Parts: sequence; C-alpha cells; structure tokens
Amino acid sequence: MSIKNSKIHKSVKIVKPNLVNIYGCKIDRNTKIGPFVEIQKDVSIGKNCKISSHTFICSGVIIKNNVFVGHNVVFINDKDPKAVNKDGKLKTEKDWKLEKTFIEDGASIGSGSVIMCGVKIEKNSIVGAGSLVLTNVPKNSIYINKRNIIKIKK
Amino acid sequence: MSIKNSKIHKSVKIVKPNLVNIYGCKIDRNTKIGPFVEIQKDVSIGKNCKISSHTFICSGVIIKNNVFVGHNVVFINDKDPKAVNKDGKLKTEKDWKLEKTFIEDGASIGSGSVIMCGVKIEKNSIVGAGSLVLTNVPKNSIYINKRNIIKIKK
Amino acid sequence: MSIKNSKIHKSVKIVKPNLVNIYGCKIDRNTKIGPFVEIQKDVSIGKNCKISSHTFICSGVIIKNNVFVGHNVVFINDKDPKAVNKDGKLKTEKDWKLEKTFIEDGASIGSGSVIMCGVKIEKNSIVGAGSLVLTNVPKNSIYINKRNIIKIKK
Repeated sequence: MSIKNSKIHKSVKIVKPNLVNIYGCKIDRNTKIGPFVEIQKDVSIGKNCKISSHTFICSGVIIKNNVFVGHNVVFINDKDPKAVNKDGKLKTEKDWKLEKTFIEDGASIGSGSVIMCGVKIEKNSIVGAGSLVLTNVPKNSIYINKRNIIKIKK
Repeated sequence: MSIKNSKIHKSVKIVKPNLVNIYGCKIDRNTKIGPFVEIQKDVSIGKNCKISSHTFICSGVIIKNNVFVGHNVVFINDKDPKAVNKDGKLKTEKDWKLEKTFIEDGASIGSGSVIMCGVKIEKNSIVGAGSLVLTNVPKNSIYINKRNIIKIKK
Repeated sequence: MSIKNSKIHKSVKIVKPNLVNIYGCKIDRNTKIGPFVEIQKDVSIGKNCKISSHTFICSGVIIKNNVFVGHNVVFINDKDPKAVNKDGKLKTEKDWKLEKTFIEDGASIGSGSVIMCGVKIEKNSIVGAGSLVLTNVPKNSIYINKRNIIKIKK
C-alpha cells in the first residue's frame, strides 16, 4: 500500500489502496479515488469529489468540492519541463517554478484531458473529454477542443 | 490480486494479475490483457482481443472478437458527468443514464484514444492513435483527427 | 515487484517498484522512473532522464541522455495494429514490422502526448503537452498541435 503522510478523512473511499500512489496531500470527506491514481504532496481535494482511475494530480493543484475528475486526466505544474538543470543534474523541486491550478466547486473534467498549469477551471464548468486546457474556463461554461474528423474508406 | 466475479476463459492471458482491476465482466478465449488495465462490471470482451496497458473499459462497453485496443485508451459511459446528484450526494449508477458503446469484429483502436459513449466502431475499422471519437466509425474505414502542427524555432 | 531481466544502473531510482512493469530493458545512471510505468524489452534509456508516471515505453524506443518524458505519454511501434494475423491467431512480434523511435539528448516530451513510431525527436526539442507527434521534431524546436478552442455558455 502506498498512501503516506496524508490527511484523508475517514469517509474517503480509496477503491484499491494497493494500486494508488498518494502522499502528503489532503482529501476531504466522501471523496472517492479510483485505482492507478497518483496524488502528490500539497494537493488539496475537497468534499464529494470523484477522482477517476489512471489520473495524475501533481503538487500545485487545488480541487474544491463536488468536482468530477474523469479517467486518465493529467495535471501539470511546470511550463518548461526539463530532465536536468543547468549544472546537468536531475532537476528537483528547487529547479522549477511550480505554477498552481485551481478547480472550483462543481466543475467536471472529462476523461483523457490534459490541464496546463496556471489555469482556473471555474464553478460548475465542464471540460469536454479529450481536451487540452490552456486557458481559464469561465464559470458555468463548456470548454471543447474542436477537431476536424476525417473518415477514409480503406 | 484484483480480479473478481468475472467469467474469464482459462485461455485468457492477464499479463500482470497484481496490476489490474477487473470485476464483474466476461472475457472470452485467447484474449490478452495488459497491466494497469481496469475493466468494469458488465463489460463483455470477445475472443482473440488485445487490451493493451493503461486502458480503461467502463460498464456499457461491448467488444466483439479480434479487436485491438491500444494503450491508454479511455471509454466513457456518461455524457454529462458530475460528482454529485441534485441532492448533493455522490452520484451512483442510479444517477446517470449509462450509454453503451459497441466495438465490432476486427476493429483496431489506436493508443491514446478517447471514445465517447453512444458510438459504434464498426467491423474492421481503424481509429488512429490519439483520436477523440465522437461519432460512429463505419466498417472498413479509417478515422483520424486532423490536427494542425506548429513547429517553432526556439 | 515486476522488474525483470533488465540492466538497470544501481543509481536509478524507481519510485514504486511494486507499481511498475519493466522487463528486458537497459536504464542508465541517475534516471528516475515514476509509478504505473511500463517499459518493454530492448528499450534503452540514457543517463539523467525522467520517465514520469503512467507512461508506456514499447520495444523499439531509444531514449538518449537528459530526456524528460512527462506523465501519461504513449509510444507506439506498429503503424497498423491488429489483434490477429491472417491466420486468425493473436498477433505476436513476428507478425508486425517494429518501427523504431529515437528521442535525442535533452529533449522534453510534455505529459499526455502520443508519439507515433518511426519519428526522431531531436536534441533539445520540446513537445508540448497533449501533442500527437506524427513527424520528426527538429533539434531546438518546439512542436505544438494547434487546437481550436470553443467556450460555450451553458
């Protein structure tokens, strides 16, 4: 089991405790966490949230109450990721500017979405499945990445 | 090990039984299941399929025979996901309309694809890697999301 | 623990050995591997790399030194994936043409990207988060998939 140093309300349901990596975070009451989820330190997740399988929540992400995070969602906290710093050593937290991301009450993030850091997904908004979110999402709005679909006859 | 209440033919190969979450489903002969896969209840998977690593198959998905599902593929069964119902309680199955998804014989779904619910991916069709599938895919066709590529000199 | 038949330098840090599937590969010094990662046989990863959580690296991928691979990145080695061969049997390695992918020194691949096989991501280039990479990425360049964003008022 890999759940460490976290403040997790006793009503929280972690579906498969052996198949998650959760440390240093705070998870409030009635929230449900799926398998194959990683939640890093200093993350805060509110009440009545659903964090679905295969999702990665990095340090710097603040999730309020009643938020749905779909499967396979990725958050980011570094806009210019590199493996090494200028001295050629593996980058540590000291080597990047952590940018925060805020997910406000009642928001829903569709499965397979990638959320760039520094954005705010506001109250009761919806991010469509498979989106790449690069800007703020205003409250009560729907955010979609339009894509051109091609169907070819084989 | 997290494989429960499922009807899995003895010839099925689950590569890493300790690294999957499989329950309440049916998997027919010779099918192969990769690690970090979740398969939910009432899913049906036919013969000679490949379900690759990191893939999530939710209730409502019917996969026929000889189907390839790539790595990191996400299926969906709720078009309007929310964490809580109107009473402010965590949504359960009773609170959404499960929409089915059908993957027919010989179809191939490329890695990293997101498949919206309510669609049919017909016989021998191909979904290109990284696609967001929002419509039916006709038999013997290829489905691609065209994307504009930008290369910038740093 | 599922780490087998691999040549892994003793300085390599595998964050959660119980939550990876690594076999038949070579990983050089100081590289760090996150949880829920699969690395297949014949993969070669250089020094000072970061391979982040939920990433899948298939046979045929060569990663040089100082490379950042984000979370939830998928590599591919078969351009025409199918579950079965012409005889109706589950495809094995003998049934497809494995195409190689090269990630050169100092490259960074953003989280949630899908990398088609047969490409070269050259020195010090950056692949933006959520990209689908279908072509070579020249050295010192930035590769982005432009997307049309729609925001609808609910």
